[in-house]
Amino acid sequence: MGEKIKRIHDSQLQNLVVSAEEAASWIQDGMTLGLSGFTRAGDAKAVPTALVKRAENGEDFKVNVYTGASLGSNIDKMFAEAGIINKRLPFQAEPSMRNAINTGEHLFVDQHLSHTSELLRADVIDRVDYAILEAISITEDGLMIPSTSVGNSLSFAETADNIIIELNTAQPESLEGLHDIYSPNKQGEREPIPLTNVDQRIGTIGISLDRKKVKGIVFTHQMDSPSTIVPPDEETKMMADHLLDFLRTEIKAGRLNESLMPLQSGIGSVANAVLHGMVDSEFKDLVVYSEVLQDAVFDLIDAGKVNFASACSLTLSDEKMEQVFHDFDKYRDKLILRPQEISNQPEIIRRLGIISINTALEFDIYGNVNSTHVSGTKMMNGIGGSGDFARNARLGIFVTKSIAKDGDISSIVPFVSHVDHTEHDVDVVVTEQGYADLRGLAPRERVPLIIENCAHPLYREQLWDYYHEALERGGQTPHVLEKAFSWHTNFKEQGTMRHVLVEQN
Amino acid sequence: MGEKIKRIHDSQLQNLVVSAEEAASWIQDGMTLGLSGFTRAGDAKAVPTALVKRAENGEDFKVNVYTGASLGSNIDKMFAEAGIINKRLPFQAEPSMRNAINTGEHLFVDQHLSHTSELLRADVIDRVDYAILEAISITEDGLMIPSTSVGNSLSFAETADNIIIELNTAQPESLEGLHDIYSPNKQGEREPIPLTNVDQRIGTIGISLDRKKVKGIVFTHQMDSPSTIVPPDEETKMMADHLLDFLRTEIKAGRLNESLMPLQSGIGSVANAVLHGMVDSEFKDLVVYSEVLQDAVFDLIDAGKVNFASACSLTLSDEKMEQVFHDFDKYRDKLILRPQEISNQPEIIRRLGIISINTALEFDIYGNVNSTHVSGTKMMNGIGGSGDFARNARLGIFVTKSIAKDGDISSIVPFVSHVDHTEHDVDVVVTEQGYADLRGLAPRERVPLIIENCAHPLYREQLWDYYHEALERGGQTPHVLEKAFSWHTNFKEQGTMRHVLVEQN
Repeated sequence: MGEKIKRIHDSQLQNLVVSAEEAASWIQDGMTLGLSGFTRAGDAKAVPTALVKRAENGEDFKVNVYTGASLGSNIDKMFAEAGIINKRLPFQAEPSMRNAINTGEHLFVDQHLSHTSELLRADVIDRVDYAILEAISITEDGLMIPSTSVGNSLSFAETADNIIIELNTAQPESLEGLHDIYSPNKQGEREPIPLTNVDQRIGTIGISLDRKKVKGIVFTHQMDSPSTIVPPDEETKMMADHLLDFLRTEIKAGRLNESLMPLQSGIGSVANAVLHGMVDSEFKDLVVYSEVLQDAVFDLIDAGKVNFASACSLTLSDEKMEQVFHDFDKYRDKLILRPQEISNQPEIIRRLGIISINTALEFDIYGNVNSTHVSGTKMMNGIGGSGDFARNARLGIFVTKSIAKDGDISSIVPFVSHVDHTEHDVDVVVTEQGYADLRGLAPRERVPLIIENCAHPLYREQLWDYYHEALERGGQTPHVLEKAFSWHTNFKEQGTMRHVLVEQN
Repeated sequence: MGEKIKRIHDSQLQNLVVSAEEAASWIQDGMTLGLSGFTRAGDAKAVPTALVKRAENGEDFKVNVYTGASLGSNIDKMFAEAGIINKRLPFQAEPSMRNAINTGEHLFVDQHLSHTSELLRADVIDRVDYAILEAISITEDGLMIPSTSVGNSLSFAETADNIIIELNTAQPESLEGLHDIYSPNKQGEREPIPLTNVDQRIGTIGISLDRKKVKGIVFTHQMDSPSTIVPPDEETKMMADHLLDFLRTEIKAGRLNESLMPLQSGIGSVANAVLHGMVDSEFKDLVVYSEVLQDAVFDLIDAGKVNFASACSLTLSDEKMEQVFHDFDKYRDKLILRPQEISNQPEIIRRLGIISINTALEFDIYGNVNSTHVSGTKMMNGIGGSGDFARNARLGIFVTKSIAKDGDISSIVPFVSHVDHTEHDVDVVVTEQGYADLRGLAPRERVPLIIENCAHPLYREQLWDYYHEALERGGQTPHVLEKAFSWHTNFKEQGTMRHVLVEQN
């Protein structure tokens, strides 16, 4: 305890140290918890685990769980399997939890990641009874220094009735100074958010604590779960190449220069690979304004391509985590972590003119994007920040492989089975086949580009058939409504979206 | 001419006066025009009419036409009937043009109204060859004073190669001082937009002209087309009552006070009626931050309910136009007209915490909204500013009557046939039946509220039937994809969405 206690520089708080079990015992049936954590980084680890233990020991209770985004450390898995969730928001990415959501065992509210803080501030969603927030230390002035993510921790600290802090001694203290904590005032009483540059600091290095709210401090010593990204495959590399080609065309047209504009890339292997594709490119003096920084951003920093990166979390592979934290001074002055309300804020995204790259599950011939629902019904992860970015970005780009399941699924369909991003918000779509630049195009102009440039050759004729039949009916956005979802229902019934195979079956 | 020329206080420009016919003769096949005009107000009238004459006299040409929003003065009707449009954006609301769009005679790009200016600034869509802008006067300093709308006039003036000004002497000179013209810098070089209050002025009273670009000034004398709103019917009044009830509930919960938050209401009779419902309410000291000010806002000002109103256009009935312009000094210090990039700016909408009220064509049991496409294919008007507002508002409210066509159409359907506003952006839906507050609810929680509170009794059982069948399949958002659009196809084939009737037929 001697060494550890030094992480609490605020002497008024030093006597609040408790065990995870004790802290977890305060949580009662029906309560709402606000947990730190964003894309597996900086999640509260010990108290949630101790809470699950209570359920495993036979206690019957349910809680609402709010987070920044996805959690690591198997927390969501344990929550789902223990059956202790009533409602979860605003994002998750865990198979057991996904299953519990889709069977209706618990409720899931899929939100734009910049919106949760407004709903808390305006007292629209249930108040947080206990905020459980990972930190690396508490300063003399009562500032809580977050760890590898900020997420919604600031909003939880501000609006919760009680706060439990998990001081994680496995997270390097050198993270102090990395964060920039800024909270907008209430709507209607708010000044402009003064951020005009990616590397600008507008707040404090930690979250100011209302000491009366702090009910306990739990020491932990456990690294974040490493990211689960997989190395780029052939198709992902082709997608990256097409995207770079598109950006080169923009430069040629005089709309961008070699520094591009601040880059955002969503969570996951594809987005990481696409960004990684810039390592060997001619682009230079890049900056990143994103919600999560994955391995590729550090490769780009190492390669001298990225000068500065701002986000609300660091989600790294095991290898990268070791490298980055071992030599953190090398990166310190090139990084800022902000609350997700700021990293994903429409005001800032539009002001900075961001190039936004996110993954689609499927898109349709008119450019509507489904980011979340498999076959229109089953939740995959959630919309995350893709809507915050795509709507407000200078360039809203969506990437996906053109086919899945060995060709039995086409990611380009007549009508997406769920709409997360409408035709109004999707600028460019990219597959391993090529890209379609949809900006300024009417729906009928988008169709040939999407089919010829992005759809897999296996499906082009089928898409044309649908479109030609639709065209006979006319309209701004021609459709054959009774066949609009036939590809999805064919897949369900016949195991493939391919008409030739369906007819043979 | 003697009296008229006094409207040009900038002596360098006085020798540029030409006839509408001469100005129209400069326009060539393939050019792009940027026309002033927003919701029938402040549209360029004479040069577009003279241009149509050229086509009627047998000339063969096509142009792209960009505007603020819908035009009055039959301009869009004449354009469509003359067949001179190649591409039209970002909004229209005219039956002949609607028809030409839906038959594919010309292209229409349906855009968020705050986005067009960014696309022009970033040189993404075709440059404007001729901006044709209505004004009331030109000051000594070369400021062009717009008339009853600002719309995209500033963006057109800034980015066009050439400018033609229509000085409309039928528009009262007393409008000078009404406008607040502010242009953000390029993305990445932009400061925060400093607006923090509805009544704040952040710019100049007119549009600064690059005199070299001004090619001609045409005198006109023609009032705007009056608005086409119809008086509230019984159902509209009920919708207004339900909306007021919802707002009262918010006050009771301590989330709002009697001054509410700045109000936005979309174009049209329903939105006007809903706002009009506040005249006899207990709400007070209201302010409006909207894109268009219709009659109801002036009734609210007259009733002492609204203290200040900001928008980008004034669209009034004949009667109201006469009253307001006759006594304009009474309203002058309570009004500001801004560019639509500012009236509809996400940054401002979120900062101010706006209550946004827009009309839906249909919504589904999960809260997705279709604002634009009849049966998923035929364009009605366009998304307009509804997306700018709903996504960023503190309260994004959509209103519609629960049935249409004597009950053969239900506005609440299993799956909307086109998505303009996703479940993530729709807070409250209102029909004459009641309201459903969807905030913080998972999809499965929204369904009972929407069916029981908003759907027409004629359709409740049918909606439950669909949902129960969908529930058996599970999922975050349960659906029966093969039946998702069956209501729409039934209407097309059988003339009704009602199952009982369909089965009888």
